[in-house]
Amino acid sequence: MFVMHGGAGTITRQNLTPDMEKQYREKLEEALRAGHAILAKGGTSLDAVETSIRILEDSPLFNAGKGAVFTHDGRNELDAAIMDGKTKRAGTVAGVTIVKNPISAARAVMEKSPHVMMSGRGADLFATQVGLEIVDPSYFWTERRWKDLQRELMKENAASSHKGTVGAVALDQAGNLAAGTSTGGTTNKKYGRIGDSPILGAGTYAENESVAVSCTGTGEYFIRWTVAHDIAALYKYRGMSDHPRREGQLRDAVQYARDVSGVGRGGWRAARADL
Amino acid sequence: MFVMHGGAGTITRQNLTPDMEKQYREKLEEALRAGHAILAKGGTSLDAVETSIRILEDSPLFNAGKGAVFTHDGRNELDAAIMDGKTKRAGTVAGVTIVKNPISAARAVMEKSPHVMMSGRGADLFATQVGLEIVDPSYFWTERRWKDLQRELMKENAASSHKGTVGAVALDQAGNLAAGTSTGGTTNKKYGRIGDSPILGAGTYAENESVAVSCTGTGEYFIRWTVAHDIAALYKYRGMSDHPRREGQLRDAVQYARDVSGVGRGGWRAARADL
Repeated sequence: MFVMHGGAGTITRQNLTPDMEKQYREKLEEALRAGHAILAKGGTSLDAVETSIRILEDSPLFNAGKGAVFTHDGRNELDAAIMDGKTKRAGTVAGVTIVKNPISAARAVMEKSPHVMMSGRGADLFATQVGLEIVDPSYFWTERRWKDLQRELMKENAASSHKGTVGAVALDQAGNLAAGTSTGGTTNKKYGRIGDSPILGAGTYAENESVAVSCTGTGEYFIRWTVAHDIAALYKYRGMSDHPRREGQLRDAVQYARDVSGVGRGGWRAARADL
Repeated sequence: MFVMHGGAGTITRQNLTPDMEKQYREKLEEALRAGHAILAKGGTSLDAVETSIRILEDSPLFNAGKGAVFTHDGRNELDAAIMDGKTKRAGTVAGVTIVKNPISAARAVMEKSPHVMMSGRGADLFATQVGLEIVDPSYFWTERRWKDLQRELMKENAASSHKGTVGAVALDQAGNLAAGTSTGGTTNKKYGRIGDSPILGAGTYAENESVAVSCTGTGEYFIRWTVAHDIAALYKYRGMSDHPRREGQLRDAVQYARDVSGVGRGGWRAARADL
């Protein structure tokens, strides 16, 4: 079972041409197929999540990797997280600037360090030392995102936009869940702002006993409500059979969510907050 | 109702002289009294939490503020979080280096920005702009912590120590909960490591419907198990009356905890993992 989100639907309603929509759909489908293929061959949910997210990170379409939005200072600071539901091992990076694929940096933190979360220059250094692909910060410059920033900077009230975060959740043949999320954060973000994506329990969470969840929306609300773990907790402590109450609670938990993707034991599958 | 932790008990068993133990107890008591006094006069739980933690941050005894431990690179990078259980508003900072009182920086993020979490130089800049007390990084240099780092650096296997994180949880006369945590992280931490303290739901959480929690211990486990929010979720979804199960679950949730302080509705009060 495999679910992805890329925020494309939300963008559609605002400013997407039919041609761009087609590009989004094709790239998402390519990533979905790659993830599915890994699971179909008996591969792990972790590999499916990482591989599919890398494909979206390499595309300029999504607000993750190559297509990341700009900060207030005109930089690209990327966040990502990955979590293994079987062991609850996890890795996250916040504010990396030279790592081509932040989702793989997150996986390296999980597999090659005693820490769970790394940030800023330290995270860049770690990614370099473990041999991940490093790029010049200019790699992340795209005209479209630059114009987004200029538009935001012109506004009196710099309400930041947050579209295009990507995420994937997977359940593999061995019954193991995994979740991953990757984002450039919000256009015009300031002061080293960290959003929900690299916060386990907020934007990303996976545990075999309950669910795998990846969120995108207004990150600050996801952090304050600990949305991803709240969904997991509802599964664990209320039980999946307790359907009406669960549904009500989930709706409550994601009241500020723009997009939540999740898979759980017993066939639960949700995307785009249709919980 | 007011509970604090300062990690002193754990230190005692290892290397604390009777004179130092007395100093710890006196400083903790001073902070406790300050928090209590605010609550007794009808002040808010938020003020009690911030005020008491500032007192410990200003002391060289605790691993927070003045007494923060050193990173691998010989710097002091401080983390803090504060959360208001009534509104679920919250603020956290990670890796600040020039803010005298990180707990107040966290409160400023909550009250004076649209973000919840700020990191590194951006967080330092924000604290400066909102007028908090700024110090030279050398303010955080203490001989004792410097020697701690040298000892860690000599070890082959740099297992980092993590003692002295401070935290407070409060329930005020209006029935509002608040939680706060402040720390220098772990001695010899690398790569911009972020621990559980500034991660809402991991080391710090407060919501009026359930509990206020502040943790200290091996941060990576608190993040992966989303410990603070797990305790809140047990309250919300299992109910406080469901005592034996709740106790079992809480013990499970804090299996890696060294110290958890919490207060909850209905008189629940815990410190030092005696859940």
